[in-house]
Amino acid sequence: MTVISLLTDFGSQDGFVGVMKGVIWDICPDAHIADLTHEIPPQSVLQGALILAQSYTYFPEGSVHVAVVDPGVGTARRGIAARVAGHYFVAPDNGLLTVVLQEAQKGDFPVELVELNRPEYWLKEVSRSFHGRDVFAPVGAHLANGVPLEKIGSPAGEVVLLDPPQPRRTPAGWEARVILVDHFGNLITDLDSSRLDPAEVSSVACQGQTAPGIVDTFAEGRPGELIAMFDSSGRLSLCVVNGSAAARLETGAGARVLVRLRS
Amino acid sequence: MTVISLLTDFGSQDGFVGVMKGVIWDICPDAHIADLTHEIPPQSVLQGALILAQSYTYFPEGSVHVAVVDPGVGTARRGIAARVAGHYFVAPDNGLLTVVLQEAQKGDFPVELVELNRPEYWLKEVSRSFHGRDVFAPVGAHLANGVPLEKIGSPAGEVVLLDPPQPRRTPAGWEARVILVDHFGNLITDLDSSRLDPAEVSSVACQGQTAPGIVDTFAEGRPGELIAMFDSSGRLSLCVVNGSAAARLETGAGARVLVRLRS
Amino acid sequence: MTVISLLTDFGSQDGFVGVMKGVIWDICPDAHIADLTHEIPPQSVLQGALILAQSYTYFPEGSVHVAVVDPGVGTARRGIAARVAGHYFVAPDNGLLTVVLQEAQKGDFPVELVELNRPEYWLKEVSRSFHGRDVFAPVGAHLANGVPLEKIGSPAGEVVLLDPPQPRRTPAGWEARVILVDHFGNLITDLDSSRLDPAEVSSVACQGQTAPGIVDTFAEGRPGELIAMFDSSGRLSLCVVNGSAAARLETGAGARVLVRLRS
Repeated sequence: MTVISLLTDFGSQDGFVGVMKGVIWDICPDAHIADLTHEIPPQSVLQGALILAQSYTYFPEGSVHVAVVDPGVGTARRGIAARVAGHYFVAPDNGLLTVVLQEAQKGDFPVELVELNRPEYWLKEVSRSFHGRDVFAPVGAHLANGVPLEKIGSPAGEVVLLDPPQPRRTPAGWEARVILVDHFGNLITDLDSSRLDPAEVSSVACQGQTAPGIVDTFAEGRPGELIAMFDSSGRLSLCVVNGSAAARLETGAGARVLVRLRS
Repeated sequence: MTVISLLTDFGSQDGFVGVMKGVIWDICPDAHIADLTHEIPPQSVLQGALILAQSYTYFPEGSVHVAVVDPGVGTARRGIAARVAGHYFVAPDNGLLTVVLQEAQKGDFPVELVELNRPEYWLKEVSRSFHGRDVFAPVGAHLANGVPLEKIGSPAGEVVLLDPPQPRRTPAGWEARVILVDHFGNLITDLDSSRLDPAEVSSVACQGQTAPGIVDTFAEGRPGELIAMFDSSGRLSLCVVNGSAAARLETGAGARVLVRLRS
Repeated sequence: MTVISLLTDFGSQDGFVGVMKGVIWDICPDAHIADLTHEIPPQSVLQGALILAQSYTYFPEGSVHVAVVDPGVGTARRGIAARVAGHYFVAPDNGLLTVVLQEAQKGDFPVELVELNRPEYWLKEVSRSFHGRDVFAPVGAHLANGVPLEKIGSPAGEVVLLDPPQPRRTPAGWEARVILVDHFGNLITDLDSSRLDPAEVSSVACQGQTAPGIVDTFAEGRPGELIAMFDSSGRLSLCVVNGSAAARLETGAGARVLVRLRS
C-alpha cells in the first residue's frame, strides 16, 4: 500500500486529475492516492513549491509526491524525480522542488536526483501539453511499485532552483513578505519561528494596521481582532479572529510585513 | 478496510486535507478515505452538523467520521469522540455532533462519548491552530485501526449542543426556516416529512413567491417553475426546475418559509 | 481492486459525492474511487458526455464509470448500464453516454447496453431526487463486485443520443465550434486532428483575433500570444501562452472558430 500525493494547478473541472489517477491505478493497482491540492494558481511554481514542502513530511515514509505546475510543458525543460528524506518526488525541473531541496540541505538529509529520460516508464504516447498524465503520473506509479530511482532516469546534475523571498533584518526588527494566503484569509509570511522569539516582538504591521505582539492562539484575540501568531507550519502569520486578514487588510501575497522588536 | 470520512471548513487550496490523509495513512495504511465536504463556510458549525448527520448513515457500519469546523482551536475547548449507531465520530466539542446526537436520542440509539485526553493517540507535536492534522486525524486513524473508544479518552460527560432552528406550528400551518442551500440553489428547510402530509398542504411561500402545494418530483413542474418538494433527506425544499431557487428568490439560509395547510 | 470513477454536476459543498462513496464501499469494500469531476455545470449533459469520453480510456480495463448529470431525475427517464471496450458505465438514459457510444461505433468496439430495472441492486429506499446515491452508485458497486451486466438489467434497446456539434467543411477550410473551456481558459473545439493536417492550416480565427497556423507546443509562442494547437485529446484549441484565451477573447462554449487552409 504505497501512498501517492498529487499537487497540481489543474483545478477540478476537466477530469485531468481523475485521468492521472486512472493512469496510476493501471500501473500500481494498490496505491492510495491523496489530493494535496489542485488549486495552485495557474503556473505559480513558487506557491506549489511552498505547499509541497509544508505538506509532505506528514505522509508515510516511502510516499511518492507527484507535483505538476508546468508552464513549460512541451518545451525542452526536463522532468525529474528525487528521493529526499525517505520520500519520492516527481516533477518538472522548473523549481517546483526548490523548498523541499533547500530544507533537505538545511537538515543535511540525503538527496538523490534523476532526470526522467527512460520512456519505458511513461505512457506509450506522450502529448505535448499533458505530461502530468503521460509522464509524471506513470513515473510516480512505477516508483510506488518499487522500481528503483536509478532505473527511472540518469543522475540529474544541477536542477532549477527558485529564489523564494527571504525576510530581511532591519534596525527595528524584521521586514517579511506575505508568501501565501490560506483559505481562511490568514496572511502567511516568509519569517519562521526559528528566527523570532515571540517575547521580543512588540508589534507586527501590514498595510498600516498593527497587531500588538505575537499571541499563542486565536483564543487570545477577540472576534474580529487582528492578531499575529505562528501558523501550523511555524511561520509568522497575520490573522483576524473568526475572520479574514486578507479581506480586512485588502492585500495578499507579496505584501510587506514589518516586525518591530522591543528595544 | 475501514472507511474514514472527512468533513471540514478547510477548502481545498492549501493542502490541509491532503495532510490529514497523509497522517491517517501513516497510522492506518488500509483506510479508505472519503471527502464528505471541505466547503463548510468557515466556522459554520451548524451547517457542518447538518451535513454530517444527513450523510453518515450511508457509510458502512464501523466507519469513522472526522469532522473539523473548529473556530475555538487552541482554546480550552475539548476534543471528543463518539460511537453512535455503530459509527464513530471525532470532532471538537463545540456542537458539531449536535444533529447526530439529537437524532440518536430520537431513535433511541446507544451513544458513547469520550473526551480526547490521551496524547499517545495524537501526533507528537500538537500545534495551536491545526488540530485536524495533529489530534482529530490521528485519533480517527487509531479508531479505524480498532483501538477501542475507551482507550482514546475518558467519559466526556455533558457535551456542547447547539440549538438548531425548529419549525413552528402556526394557526395556518407551519413557519419553517431555510437551513441549507445546496449546490443547485435548492432551499432546504428545517421542516421534515414526518411532520407534514403533502396532501394537506395548499401552498409554500418564501420571499413573496408561492409554490402551489408539494409535488413528488421535479418532473411535475415546468422548467423555471418554483416548486416545493421533499429533498433526498426528507426535508421540505423550495426548488426551481432546472434552475436555482436561491437565485430566483434572492435568499438563503435563515429565510422564513410559510406552509399553509388546507382548512 | 476495481476502480470506480465518478462524474457528476453535484459540486462538492453538500456531501452528495461523499455519500455516493459511502454507498459504494458498503457494497464493494475494495473499490478504489476516483473523482473525475463534480463541476459539470448543472444539467449540462453534453459537457459531461465530452469529458467522460476523453477520460475513461486512461483507466484500467474493467473500471466502472458512474456518471450522473440528471435533470430528469424522478421522471420516467430510464437508468442504463453499458459495457464498452472493456469498461463499464452507469448513467441516466439522457445522452450522457453519447460520445462514448459514438466513438465505440467509429472504432467498431462491441457495446452492450442494459436498462436498470432490477431494484435488488439499488438501495432499499429510492428517493425521487438523488438516484446517484440510490441507484447509480449501488449499481456501479455491484458491477465492480463482478455482478454480470446481464443481471443488472435487461437489454436497453434504443438509448437517447445527443447530437454534439460537428465541424463544417467550408470553401476556405473549416468552421468549428468551441465545445469546452478548460481550467486554464483554453478554448477547445469540435475539430480533431484526424481531419486536419497542421501543415496546411494558414490561420485559426475566433472573435476577430487570429492565430497564425497550428503550433506543436506552448513553447513556440511568446507569453501572452494567442496560439492554436491540438490539446491532449487531439482537438484543435485556442490558447494564450501562460494566460487564458477565454478571458482574452471574452468568449466560451459555442463560439465559432474559422480555420483557413492554404490554397
